[in-house]
Amino acid sequence: MDNDEIDRILEKNIPKSMLQRGRTTVDSLLSPVRDVLNRRQFPDKALTDLQLEIMLQLLSSLDTDKDPEAARVGEREARIASPFIGQLSAGFNHGVGRSGQLVAPQPKAPGSSLMQQVANNVALDAIRKLGLSNMKSGIVTPLSTGMSISLILSALRREQGIKHVLFPRIDHASPHRAIAFAGLEETVIPTIINGDAVQADLGNLEKRIKNAEYCAVLATTTFFPPRESDPVKEIARLCAENATPLVINNAYGVQSEKTMGEIRSAADAGRVDAVVQSSDKNFLAPVGGSVIVSPSGAFIEQVTETYAGRASAAPIVQTLAALLAIGLDKYKNLRQQQTENLAFLSDRMHELADKFGQRVLSVWNPVACAITIDGVDAKELGARLYNARVTGPRAVEKGESGSSCDGYPHSYLVMNAAIGASRNDMETATAKLAAEWGQLQPK
Amino acid sequence: MDNDEIDRILEKNIPKSMLQRGRTTVDSLLSPVRDVLNRRQFPDKALTDLQLEIMLQLLSSLDTDKDPEAARVGEREARIASPFIGQLSAGFNHGVGRSGQLVAPQPKAPGSSLMQQVANNVALDAIRKLGLSNMKSGIVTPLSTGMSISLILSALRREQGIKHVLFPRIDHASPHRAIAFAGLEETVIPTIINGDAVQADLGNLEKRIKNAEYCAVLATTTFFPPRESDPVKEIARLCAENATPLVINNAYGVQSEKTMGEIRSAADAGRVDAVVQSSDKNFLAPVGGSVIVSPSGAFIEQVTETYAGRASAAPIVQTLAALLAIGLDKYKNLRQQQTENLAFLSDRMHELADKFGQRVLSVWNPVACAITIDGVDAKELGARLYNARVTGPRAVEKGESGSSCDGYPHSYLVMNAAIGASRNDMETATAKLAAEWGQLQPK
Amino acid sequence: MDNDEIDRILEKNIPKSMLQRGRTTVDSLLSPVRDVLNRRQFPDKALTDLQLEIMLQLLSSLDTDKDPEAARVGEREARIASPFIGQLSAGFNHGVGRSGQLVAPQPKAPGSSLMQQVANNVALDAIRKLGLSNMKSGIVTPLSTGMSISLILSALRREQGIKHVLFPRIDHASPHRAIAFAGLEETVIPTIINGDAVQADLGNLEKRIKNAEYCAVLATTTFFPPRESDPVKEIARLCAENATPLVINNAYGVQSEKTMGEIRSAADAGRVDAVVQSSDKNFLAPVGGSVIVSPSGAFIEQVTETYAGRASAAPIVQTLAALLAIGLDKYKNLRQQQTENLAFLSDRMHELADKFGQRVLSVWNPVACAITIDGVDAKELGARLYNARVTGPRAVEKGESGSSCDGYPHSYLVMNAAIGASRNDMETATAKLAAEWGQLQPK
Amino acid sequence: MDNDEIDRILEKNIPKSMLQRGRTTVDSLLSPVRDVLNRRQFPDKALTDLQLEIMLQLLSSLDTDKDPEAARVGEREARIASPFIGQLSAGFNHGVGRSGQLVAPQPKAPGSSLMQQVANNVALDAIRKLGLSNMKSGIVTPLSTGMSISLILSALRREQGIKHVLFPRIDHASPHRAIAFAGLEETVIPTIINGDAVQADLGNLEKRIKNAEYCAVLATTTFFPPRESDPVKEIARLCAENATPLVINNAYGVQSEKTMGEIRSAADAGRVDAVVQSSDKNFLAPVGGSVIVSPSGAFIEQVTETYAGRASAAPIVQTLAALLAIGLDKYKNLRQQQTENLAFLSDRMHELADKFGQRVLSVWNPVACAITIDGVDAKELGARLYNARVTGPRAVEKGESGSSCDGYPHSYLVMNAAIGASRNDMETATAKLAAEWGQLQPK
Repeated sequence: MDNDEIDRILEKNIPKSMLQRGRTTVDSLLSPVRDVLNRRQFPDKALTDLQLEIMLQLLSSLDTDKDPEAARVGEREARIASPFIGQLSAGFNHGVGRSGQLVAPQPKAPGSSLMQQVANNVALDAIRKLGLSNMKSGIVTPLSTGMSISLILSALRREQGIKHVLFPRIDHASPHRAIAFAGLEETVIPTIINGDAVQADLGNLEKRIKNAEYCAVLATTTFFPPRESDPVKEIARLCAENATPLVINNAYGVQSEKTMGEIRSAADAGRVDAVVQSSDKNFLAPVGGSVIVSPSGAFIEQVTETYAGRASAAPIVQTLAALLAIGLDKYKNLRQQQTENLAFLSDRMHELADKFGQRVLSVWNPVACAITIDGVDAKELGARLYNARVTGPRAVEKGESGSSCDGYPHSYLVMNAAIGASRNDMETATAKLAAEWGQLQPK
Repeated sequence: MDNDEIDRILEKNIPKSMLQRGRTTVDSLLSPVRDVLNRRQFPDKALTDLQLEIMLQLLSSLDTDKDPEAARVGEREARIASPFIGQLSAGFNHGVGRSGQLVAPQPKAPGSSLMQQVANNVALDAIRKLGLSNMKSGIVTPLSTGMSISLILSALRREQGIKHVLFPRIDHASPHRAIAFAGLEETVIPTIINGDAVQADLGNLEKRIKNAEYCAVLATTTFFPPRESDPVKEIARLCAENATPLVINNAYGVQSEKTMGEIRSAADAGRVDAVVQSSDKNFLAPVGGSVIVSPSGAFIEQVTETYAGRASAAPIVQTLAALLAIGLDKYKNLRQQQTENLAFLSDRMHELADKFGQRVLSVWNPVACAITIDGVDAKELGARLYNARVTGPRAVEKGESGSSCDGYPHSYLVMNAAIGASRNDMETATAKLAAEWGQLQPK
Repeated sequence: MDNDEIDRILEKNIPKSMLQRGRTTVDSLLSPVRDVLNRRQFPDKALTDLQLEIMLQLLSSLDTDKDPEAARVGEREARIASPFIGQLSAGFNHGVGRSGQLVAPQPKAPGSSLMQQVANNVALDAIRKLGLSNMKSGIVTPLSTGMSISLILSALRREQGIKHVLFPRIDHASPHRAIAFAGLEETVIPTIINGDAVQADLGNLEKRIKNAEYCAVLATTTFFPPRESDPVKEIARLCAENATPLVINNAYGVQSEKTMGEIRSAADAGRVDAVVQSSDKNFLAPVGGSVIVSPSGAFIEQVTETYAGRASAAPIVQTLAALLAIGLDKYKNLRQQQTENLAFLSDRMHELADKFGQRVLSVWNPVACAITIDGVDAKELGARLYNARVTGPRAVEKGESGSSCDGYPHSYLVMNAAIGASRNDMETATAKLAAEWGQLQPK
Repeated sequence: MDNDEIDRILEKNIPKSMLQRGRTTVDSLLSPVRDVLNRRQFPDKALTDLQLEIMLQLLSSLDTDKDPEAARVGEREARIASPFIGQLSAGFNHGVGRSGQLVAPQPKAPGSSLMQQVANNVALDAIRKLGLSNMKSGIVTPLSTGMSISLILSALRREQGIKHVLFPRIDHASPHRAIAFAGLEETVIPTIINGDAVQADLGNLEKRIKNAEYCAVLATTTFFPPRESDPVKEIARLCAENATPLVINNAYGVQSEKTMGEIRSAADAGRVDAVVQSSDKNFLAPVGGSVIVSPSGAFIEQVTETYAGRASAAPIVQTLAALLAIGLDKYKNLRQQQTENLAFLSDRMHELADKFGQRVLSVWNPVACAITIDGVDAKELGARLYNARVTGPRAVEKGESGSSCDGYPHSYLVMNAAIGASRNDMETATAKLAAEWGQLQPK
């Protein structure tokens, strides 16, 4: 409804000053929504839930399945089995994408097409403002980081003839699956142990890059200690020198200013084809989407042309809404809190180390802290913490897989102070760790 | 809360007969929910929206992000940016799957794990009851048909060394992308024109199967006329004889008893590795999910191990809810309506053919009907229908791509009477076609 | 947002024809909403739930509690304890009314003020179109029929000096309470038994009207058999002749064309001050609101000035939404179904009467049918039906209260075929009646 | 579903430790819900929105309109026009109450009956814990304070023969309407001006109480300055001595510990029949409900028997939910904030007084602060603040009504620091006041 019409409706019935006041309220309420749709930026100030709801309703109302007069003779018409099903999709029943292009506008769904474009723009702007100012293009994918990496690698195979992927070792199943899904060979580059830290072996990687043809590198910025972030700047330089594509798995690195700074330097100093970040781990969206950014608009376009067919709109909608529900100001606060929580967690870990005669591992990690648990039954400690309702700790037994290297000389336990966690999470988790640990018999 | 407790609460305050009556109501209301969770079957009778809402709330309440006492120290903890974001996911913030297995239970998310298992079981049961009684295993994927085909093909590559795919021609971008995504080579098998129909060239396909190594076949049951369904029974026999995997793209074939019967015969008579169906086109869910079924449980397991990482729970939840919101009885009614609508559409098309001096194409198709529009500007007619709010018709100019063959001798227009469409859709669309057509000048 | 702005936003990103299509959809979707707000009429065609949701959101967004920039220094500012609380009120947190006037616009709440005006207009229009075309003014009250009658009577006391109320006997507690609440004396006019029917004693009433000063009459159109409707036309004539106010309790009479016709004739032929109808029983809204209409606009204004203070917006919103969710066309269908259901119920009751040696009472009633159950334990039969999940039957023992007369010569059981009931309700209820009855021992 | 059943369902599919973990989460999530239903107390800790939603869904699922097997043959069966209408009522479609009793259990609606009882108990407990520990009984009414006072007065008339009401003057329309609605005469007791304050004239009131028969007193604790609270302790003593009922309008006094302390002392020292408090102004519920408490259970029962018929469940549900969404701990925090905000507001008012050569009125008020605006056009200043989006200030011109006395010697402006307001509200409102005031010309 346009504003004149609202005026006319109001005018008939209620005093003029009230009319003006009602209009002022609506204008003010919708102003951030307009801004998002017009400017497509990551806003400084968060939108409220009411504003988000109105925005999504406005957008989904543009799709033809909402048209009361439409005659529907397609094989797919976004029909839904009951009204509740339509609530589950926030009205975006047509999904996103077209057969050959993940971001192509769909004639039957102008609203979801627009929503997707807004999501892409807002996400890119967020990533730029949060550190990667040298990225030129970006998309929100309806896939988590693992499958998003696969999507990127598949695009590299098709467009640049890549056949295998050099992968500094990370003990995580997803990247292996991602490489395999795209039909590529994988070469795991062994890590080195440097003090407490497990690090990429840059020399080995360099040798491989120089000797291999048709290869790409998959580097990682965020993983559990004792694994440290890959030195992306140095890797990007090597890749530039050897015309080797570089994909950076920045799963939960957006929350770390330092990590983002390193990736920015990498893209300035060398070659970076794409950077992938999780929308749930960085932006507090439900699991299911990622943000892929690149210094190259053309490459992002190739990526979108790699996806086969259409996709659920849900991960896109959820990521967009989460970004807008935070905004830049609050994101900075969350980062600040994260930093404080990590410092607090580290202090507590040192206290526990003193108490139990262990050591906090000397490993740089943007969100996690690890303590040795030598002589402790890691599996039992993990199980006890699970039952004590501590979610997310990672207890690794010496000699077992998980340390991203062979022969790591300690058992250890990792806890994270990730973005969105509270001080209370840290306090409770470390208190429960102390309590459970205290009840364990030495092996 | 258990029933005794509900009794105790009620007893204190309201007369005993009312207590009994309240319990009767709750029991009766929840009984279909219990049945779904216990038996995991496609129910005869649809669940109501209230029942669906309660069921999903119950399930999502099992996930640890709902635990008020949990201490969260993982790098992913299903935190959400605002309450509205949690509504967008129906509370399944942890998504589904684990790093290496799409259907592995997640310790942090017992509820979403259970929901996914229920979805897989209900979907398999639905497919079995709707015609493919010889399928042994099935999953709901968080991917549309295109990407689901890619997932299957990638599993075939990894597990059976498949390197290329024989694909009886369909003029549709998604399958090509799907094959390419998985890093496979594609061999398009040209079609033949038989009367009005465009059909798979079985002889050519047979020759190729016999001569090729490491190949799989991708057959299609549902596409636009003049393309007819592939003869899946014959193809399955060929595949069995040659130990060649067969994937059937049954995008919207569940609605057709005949199509389902042919696939069942194919699996009985020969080799079928997997059958893929769209959850939106067959089950009136929002776009985003598929149901993959197979006569082999082991193969489905391989497919789930091909997915890289975790995924959005939304397509799974939406598919499960849509299946339950329909149920077998109503699905049969919908099929009946679909058959009637198609007959009605065909009648109207014949009337239009008489009026405009054209012909209805003599092509078998489970949901669509095509009329020649020789001498008409197909593009303009399509644009006019779009503006007249007819969604989904397909107007193809003679000589242009889209007919799944070279040199198809007609321009034609296709309309569908798909499941969920109303008689009114058919009436309005054909009336508008008549009106718009009447206003066109001959070229 | 105005339309030009939507155009500008869309134009930047998606093809122009899609832009136009999106606009067409939105226009078509919102058109009935516009109509309701502009014309304030009971629409022929029902609004969809999506349209209702958008309308209410638009209206509640005009209230100042939605203004992000407002500085709130009142003692009441429509603050809410949590977002969920705001959902419970559909955003109308300010309620309706002002201290001295139930329908006065509230400066802080232009939206709820407007919503209330629209509700009043739509409800009046509905009542007029459904039979009372001679009504001039109407309001939706946030009170059920009992309290609404009290409100009217209190206005009559204040404005016209009424001191007592003549009330043809109905065995129902609410009207007594209503009269007492307003501080008025009550004179119950005994009924007469005429065949099976219990009827108002018009002669007695006339005598009382002529002899009493400062009295008003409260007549009733809908009650359980054997009580028949009061002859409102004759009563209205008597009231006109004697300058006596007449209030008609038309609790659930809107569904009956005949009852509405009689009230219309009454207002044409004599004096009717106000007619009260339940919004739940007539319009399928949740319990809590009523519609009061009058041939006199001035009287309705007096009624609104009788209410003390502000009120919950919920009953108004629910009544408005229910009216729009039905619309005239569907209301006519519902009436048609009601008539058929009543005929069906009556047939079944006759069958049961034959079977059990009883009689169907010969009493006119717009929705109910009664069968004698002489010799049966009414209380036990009622309890059995309650436990058998038949809701709403009324079993009255000869000699007990409930027949609106003294000494009614039968025990009997009443069932209703009210608007919104299904054929299945009738079938199941009568089948269960037969079954339970059959198991009863004669007393 | 009972716990054993949940166990059985989970056991089949997911590892046992996950099963246990899921159960732990659900138990912990539901524990506060159980507590509310079992103990019916105002909890220390707030319930989350998810817990509230689950609780209301559980309760409304007990009502017979949710029974899939019920056969419905009543004239009222809580049918709803569309699913959206049922959302508007949170599923409590049957409303509350029975014909003659506002809190009687309804056989068709065990759930809403229970909900209402829980609401009454929780509200009474809240009022007791927040200061009125000597209250014995309480109810939540579906009426705002004005109509709730009417309900109480009507009960006093019926049960105790009250005919008129002594009312220390308050310039507010609602109480007058409330007295008139119940058919009672009103005697306004003039106030006295004492310094800046306008106070009840206790001597005059005493004289009237002694001389009048069949009278009750309506005293007020919260109103705008310069009116101060009535001295309820002294009034209660007078009432006890003269066997005169006393009703206290404590509209928004729950937020003030001092006010609550005075009422408690009054009930200890003298006679208090009922105390009425607004659920929106005290508990941040949407407008529409009140909490009536009394030291006498019998009197509350009489009040419930005064209401005519049934009522909307919405105000009860909203009040219950708001109480639980706050809880005692948070309420104490809100009170603390309110006290700080009022001190801050007062400071700012003093600064403005200095700046503009005016005075802050020396009047005790629990939430409000008033500044003289002598020589200023009060109406214009009020209009300017309205347009500047300051809601709730009250500007009164010398000589005009509103000061609850004749001849108050100042123009003045009132602002409130009510519960739930933010520091920012105070800052912005006073800054805007300074700005608007600065632009006014002296009269």
